[in-house]
Amino acid sequence: MCNVRPSGVITLLTDFGLADFFVGAMKGVILSIHREAVIVDLTHLIPPQDIYAAALTLADCYATFPEGTIHVAVVDPGVGSERRAVLIETARYFFIGPDNGLFTLVVEQESLQRAIQITAERFFRHPVSRTFHGRDVFAPVAAWLARGVPPSEFGPEVSDLMRLPIPRVERLDEKRWRGQVIHVDRFGNLITNVTARDVPLEALRQGGRLLVNGHEVSALRTHYHEAAPRELFALVGSTGRVEIAVREGSAATALGVGRGATVEILLP
Amino acid sequence: MCNVRPSGVITLLTDFGLADFFVGAMKGVILSIHREAVIVDLTHLIPPQDIYAAALTLADCYATFPEGTIHVAVVDPGVGSERRAVLIETARYFFIGPDNGLFTLVVEQESLQRAIQITAERFFRHPVSRTFHGRDVFAPVAAWLARGVPPSEFGPEVSDLMRLPIPRVERLDEKRWRGQVIHVDRFGNLITNVTARDVPLEALRQGGRLLVNGHEVSALRTHYHEAAPRELFALVGSTGRVEIAVREGSAATALGVGRGATVEILLP
Amino acid sequence: MCNVRPSGVITLLTDFGLADFFVGAMKGVILSIHREAVIVDLTHLIPPQDIYAAALTLADCYATFPEGTIHVAVVDPGVGSERRAVLIETARYFFIGPDNGLFTLVVEQESLQRAIQITAERFFRHPVSRTFHGRDVFAPVAAWLARGVPPSEFGPEVSDLMRLPIPRVERLDEKRWRGQVIHVDRFGNLITNVTARDVPLEALRQGGRLLVNGHEVSALRTHYHEAAPRELFALVGSTGRVEIAVREGSAATALGVGRGATVEILLP
Repeated sequence: MCNVRPSGVITLLTDFGLADFFVGAMKGVILSIHREAVIVDLTHLIPPQDIYAAALTLADCYATFPEGTIHVAVVDPGVGSERRAVLIETARYFFIGPDNGLFTLVVEQESLQRAIQITAERFFRHPVSRTFHGRDVFAPVAAWLARGVPPSEFGPEVSDLMRLPIPRVERLDEKRWRGQVIHVDRFGNLITNVTARDVPLEALRQGGRLLVNGHEVSALRTHYHEAAPRELFALVGSTGRVEIAVREGSAATALGVGRGATVEILLP
Repeated sequence: MCNVRPSGVITLLTDFGLADFFVGAMKGVILSIHREAVIVDLTHLIPPQDIYAAALTLADCYATFPEGTIHVAVVDPGVGSERRAVLIETARYFFIGPDNGLFTLVVEQESLQRAIQITAERFFRHPVSRTFHGRDVFAPVAAWLARGVPPSEFGPEVSDLMRLPIPRVERLDEKRWRGQVIHVDRFGNLITNVTARDVPLEALRQGGRLLVNGHEVSALRTHYHEAAPRELFALVGSTGRVEIAVREGSAATALGVGRGATVEILLP
Repeated sequence: MCNVRPSGVITLLTDFGLADFFVGAMKGVILSIHREAVIVDLTHLIPPQDIYAAALTLADCYATFPEGTIHVAVVDPGVGSERRAVLIETARYFFIGPDNGLFTLVVEQESLQRAIQITAERFFRHPVSRTFHGRDVFAPVAAWLARGVPPSEFGPEVSDLMRLPIPRVERLDEKRWRGQVIHVDRFGNLITNVTARDVPLEALRQGGRLLVNGHEVSALRTHYHEAAPRELFALVGSTGRVEIAVREGSAATALGVGRGATVEILLP
């Protein structure tokens, strides 16, 4: 087996916000161990303890990074409990964080090489706090891994990673599916879980409709500018998901819906 | 002609916010092409689709960067439409983004060498989405430019860059001018478009007045501490613009005005 | 005396927010002087002009950084007045910012080598504005220091650094102390000024109680998961301070209190 080697790039994704000392402390710990690390923030504004939002955000951008990138994700409501800390190695990347389902989507998309339970306390920052493993466990492990410590040094292999329940698209009949809004982005676009794997998007484009909270969204556009200002429309977004948008406005506001809303899809 | 060479520093200015995967994806793409790039965030909190705010923020800080810095700005309501993507080379810097007026102020301040329409798809990330050229066009072009690809490789020269209408200071009579508030900063300071190029600031300092929304602001101070606590005052800010401030408070709140408000200036 | 040498890492902590050009300008100035600097944001979301919050946030994470890190902190309500600019050298770090008490906690924790008043204008960015010394004084001084200019070059030594009044824990009788909430974090946890130096935490754990705004918090837990969902509890947080938390909720909201609230501690 030919393993991927750490590239020196370490990304951070957390729910720590940007106002407290948390993110700075993680970066300090990393640089103290590996001064040459290139640290990149994915986001620290995951809603507090929202594991699914973190899993989705990570899944949407991890693969743009160079091979060997170490992705550290810390949304960790179970910190200090018996939940495990894990290091996941795939064919191209490393993922480090609590074993609470954060990596569910990533593991579906990547070729898993092995998952290791992080137990080797000699790589931790001591004393290890009971409430901030981002600083005391995940950051130092990422830094030592980036410096060249082999994954197997951090603990034993495990095979039963936690998986989040992922909302799936349901087929209602030959021409109807039921999906849902899984994210609302900065612009108020409603991101659904519907992709080309679920629904024939070409047919949807030829006269299909979406129903959301009693509103009908009539057509797939190919880009924002194809729609009229203030028009409600659907399109396939940059991560392959069907999105509902309003040109020069917020679809979330226009439709009065948010995450979890049902989206019904009807082919002509 | 002796052209500036890329320094390896790439700045990012967008309206993408900090909560979604957008900014992380741009950085991943850049590092995948050019691992040695130094990526600096200017801001990602430009109000959604507010091209003028982006142009102003960029103009206020681009020139602090080393020569050869590549400034990538993406506020792009026309993404996916026929709006062009451009690479602008000035005597000292490179600017990359949609051709929608984002670079209007910069081009006024810098010595333009050439503007290139970005058309060379071999430098893009494929498949190119219709909604996220920050990731698929601008980030990879910046990274390849930083790696040494000559600007001319990215497409043909163009000469008709889009310009935003910029609010100008109007002279009403010998002793009166009308300007406007063009930005409200974090501290509630009202930043106007009035500079020493428009109004003799020394005369303003000697007994001049400003009128904003029916309130009189009586004098130019030289710094915040010269004013009394809660006093409303004007000063010349760090980018050369006349600002209206309240010591230990917000001028925007105190005056009940925001961007676009008229500011009348009267010399004694 | 064997002095610490700059590591090339420069951290930034300000109240500038993330929406304006301020932070970008500081980074541009630093990179223009020292292209190899590694710049790390601690936070830029200190509440405007809140020196104590800045002092606390800095104290909570500066020591995770490698020796020789230059910590630049700019919360500067007195900018442009006669307040001094200082460069503080401790056994392990450098601190640069206005002399307004920002470094009070740090100086208590570190071994002070010397404090220098920054007066050498040849290292400043010119013209020096009256309102933005972050860009014109502190950033360039940090960059020149990182490049190897000896601290003594920046000005004369001083011995009378400004100190903030720090809220101390008061002993009421043999079994009672009065502390206070000094910070509310992203998760709504109430961080107090009570540490093991003030109160015997082991005794507190054995049946002690906390009183906050008429509510009784009954016990010290060791981690969040030891508590029942929605239970109000206290624990020793990751920086050694007693914190009041609600599992899966906000203690600040549950108790209706914020910074400055009194916390009474009673041993059994």
